Amino acid sequence: MIVTVTLNAALDVTYGIDRLVPHSSHRICTVHQQAGGKGINVARVLAAFDRHALVMGLVGGATGDAIRAEIASFSPSDLVDIAAESRRTLTVVCRADGEATTFNEPGPMVTAEEWSRFSRRFAESLDSAKLVVLSGSLPPGLPISAYAELVQLAHEHEVPAVVDVGGEALMAAARARPAAVKPNLSELTEATGSTDPMEGAYELRAVGAQRVVVSQGASGLLAVGDDGTWRAVPPARVSGNPTGAGDACVAALAVGLTSRWSWPKTLRVATALSAAAVCAPVAGRYDAAAYRRFLPAVHVEELDATHADR
Amino acid sequence: MIVTVTLNAALDVTYGIDRLVPHSSHRICTVHQQAGGKGINVARVLAAFDRHALVMGLVGGATGDAIRAEIASFSPSDLVDIAAESRRTLTVVCRADGEATTFNEPGPMVTAEEWSRFSRRFAESLDSAKLVVLSGSLPPGLPISAYAELVQLAHEHEVPAVVDVGGEALMAAARARPAAVKPNLSELTEATGSTDPMEGAYELRAVGAQRVVVSQGASGLLAVGDDGTWRAVPPARVSGNPTGAGDACVAALAVGLTSRWSWPKTLRVATALSAAAVCAPVAGRYDAAAYRRFLPAVHVEELDATHADR
Repeated sequence: MIVTVTLNAALDVTYGIDRLVPHSSHRICTVHQQAGGKGINVARVLAAFDRHALVMGLVGGATGDAIRAEIASFSPSDLVDIAAESRRTLTVVCRADGEATTFNEPGPMVTAEEWSRFSRRFAESLDSAKLVVLSGSLPPGLPISAYAELVQLAHEHEVPAVVDVGGEALMAAARARPAAVKPNLSELTEATGSTDPMEGAYELRAVGAQRVVVSQGASGLLAVGDDGTWRAVPPARVSGNPTGAGDACVAALAVGLTSRWSWPKTLRVATALSAAAVCAPVAGRYDAAAYRRFLPAVHVEELDATHADR
Repeated sequence: MIVTVTLNAALDVTYGIDRLVPHSSHRICTVHQQAGGKGINVARVLAAFDRHALVMGLVGGATGDAIRAEIASFSPSDLVDIAAESRRTLTVVCRADGEATTFNEPGPMVTAEEWSRFSRRFAESLDSAKLVVLSGSLPPGLPISAYAELVQLAHEHEVPAVVDVGGEALMAAARARPAAVKPNLSELTEATGSTDPMEGAYELRAVGAQRVVVSQGASGLLAVGDDGTWRAVPPARVSGNPTGAGDACVAALAVGLTSRWSWPKTLRVATALSAAAVCAPVAGRYDAAAYRRFLPAVHVEELDATHADR
């Protein structure tokens, strides 16, 4: 079973309104809410892909209860309770232009005792885990090395880890030698200081990450690892909601790595699934028809050594 | 004991952000939440005024639990559970300019069974009630005559009722002969079609309301009733948050009517308390120092009969 970890789980609320007029009062036409946070969205994609994951994470308060209940509708879970209230994110979507305005509550403060309780539960889950996905921001109170510690625990159980986080937490996690990291370009720049994807990817490789997959939106994926340096490009620029495309990519990497797919096949599926996620209106979902259409049309190529070694 | 009724209770959430930029992502700096809805705000003012009320209303779901818990921190309550989830209101306040943008979720659907259960509980509370305050919008599912029915029940127990609602529900309630109604000018216009406050007030009097108190912001109150026609004007234009000023006015009317204050004294307190509520940043609170300063400075006058009888 694939285990996905979401330390900063959220209740993602979407308000549909006619038009956003700052400094005025708005009547909300539609309210939608679902559990969110990157690891939960990865699990949602895996469920849609018929690979049910175990959702692990930290939840608290009434918002935590709502998160827990919504996860139960699509995936098994093992969530650790915390005293503080889980965060909510709010997206206000204007029906006039489809544009979204988002408001992100700060995450809940996690205590040292709660973190060690989670770590113990995570270690227990590793007995039956084939791969772990560690995804999304860290809530206040957790050490920047949080993901690095979980990657280390996974190593001790010989379970590969895929990490999707930015900044310092990414650099710390890369040093713990995960099977893969999946930054987007801005997360990579934040972590390494480099604005060049190839250079940044090589730096994360150098410190320990076995594979670095850089997601670059419509430009597709750049992948650097023992299997060579690869580029995978989606067939066409798709328009839609890019939130969740990275989570679809991570879900595909997790499936590829646990199914012993070839690396080019894994990158092809990851690229097609990301593009198909952009076509779906909600994070954690993908357009299955678009996925089947995109899959054979993704362009996957191995870059030459000159380019790769620069 | 004063009983306040809030049929469309809400969880009022306030997000503090730096600046509102439509179609972008915002980090929320501060999150504040409290129970809301007009009757609950009236009870909050009464508590601050050392007159604890019994808060009655309808609440549902996790949001209802949060509303219930917050009310318990300041007032006794007797809330009826409903199956649907209580609404939230969101106010986004920019720290740069203090301007507020609000988003109001639709109210929960209330079933006929839930409404009759509430009516029975309300009737029971009337045995020990000195006055009832019926305040705020009606949630979906309730008849437009909802407040009129509650005023009728109050009459049967010889308990006076103060009603603060707009539109058709106001007109229906006025016909049930409440002790007072407290529309603002736009609610009065909505109910009577008249844009003249005196004319509108006389119309509500004519259909049954014993006293009509029209709140007109910085212009103060116009009061029409058996006690004559009066105007009460605050000492100075105060700047701040006008949300909740009407609830402070209603709280003062409830105290005045149950304490057998003279009508001019009641209007004086209502005007000063409303202005002091504008000075407080949050609905349901008032600035006690400002209140003591405003109280002797309110100008209260009886309008002449010529004017009053037109």
